[in-house]
Amino acid sequence: MTRQRLEKGLVQVYTGDGKGKTSAAFGLALRAAGRGLKVYVIQFIKGGFDYGELYIVEKIPNLKLASFGRGKFVTEIPASEEDSKLAQEAFDIAKMVVKGGKYDVVVLDEVNVALNLKMISIDDVIDLIKSKPKHVELILTGRYAPMQIIDAADLVTEMKEVKHPYSQGVPPRKGIEY
Amino acid sequence: MTRQRLEKGLVQVYTGDGKGKTSAAFGLALRAAGRGLKVYVIQFIKGGFDYGELYIVEKIPNLKLASFGRGKFVTEIPASEEDSKLAQEAFDIAKMVVKGGKYDVVVLDEVNVALNLKMISIDDVIDLIKSKPKHVELILTGRYAPMQIIDAADLVTEMKEVKHPYSQGVPPRKGIEY
Repeated sequence: MTRQRLEKGLVQVYTGDGKGKTSAAFGLALRAAGRGLKVYVIQFIKGGFDYGELYIVEKIPNLKLASFGRGKFVTEIPASEEDSKLAQEAFDIAKMVVKGGKYDVVVLDEVNVALNLKMISIDDVIDLIKSKPKHVELILTGRYAPMQIIDAADLVTEMKEVKHPYSQGVPPRKGIEY
Repeated sequence: MTRQRLEKGLVQVYTGDGKGKTSAAFGLALRAAGRGLKVYVIQFIKGGFDYGELYIVEKIPNLKLASFGRGKFVTEIPASEEDSKLAQEAFDIAKMVVKGGKYDVVVLDEVNVALNLKMISIDDVIDLIKSKPKHVELILTGRYAPMQIIDAADLVTEMKEVKHPYSQGVPPRKGIEY
């Protein structure tokens, strides 16, 4: 049986200060994998940390995950040389995976944050978007998506925080927030 | 080994006209299941239709899915008697699952839509929220979350459509939109 491919892959962005950006990308990955599409999730910044998703991804056929990071969220500008090097490594893999065209859905998780921290070049990411194979769906997540990314995307959703218990002093919970 | 439970389960709402509400809930389900939490997803309205998620859910340990619907989205008010009956059935299961306390995370997918179409009673859902066992995380999705639901929730995220290709004439794609 020939594997189904997308006729036309789009560029999706999930941004905003609300919850659910990475979860939406993983939910989408699940759906695509369920259809037999090949999915590659590349995590910028986040890797090395203990996330609940990591424990189940290996059970899902058609889904591959690569994480680049030192186990904590980078928030300072300029980011350290080590963090920037990891982000650049993540982007190099992303470029290979997208251009290779073997994967139907490629998620660049938290790439917007890496862009905002100037860890990778916005021109490089725009180049990647413009030169992606037609059938590849590209999904970019992370708050503070730069305007150039929004302009280049086909579908943009902003996750807006309406109400959040962190501000009421609830710490992140294992299995829910991470 | 004793199974880990949440110390305090919250009530989360994903609403708004943007993409990613159901996906965020499924992504969260994935994370929770990866942690060994028991997850039950109940789909209002949506069931009976061919969704990509359905093909992979059975491969995920700790994740159970029940769908109630006739294979198409209900949009008319008043909803037909048959659709309303299915929604009420879904809610009855939801009540049992939540109150039983055996599941740590319960997702009521598209329940907000069922509420808006008056297929189930808002007072019943508020009652369920108020009487849920402390350790149960309850997640409600669907556009048009009623204000009473938002008031009763701990965490509310609005998925806001910033840019959407449907309006550019791109039809829903298998593996991505469903």
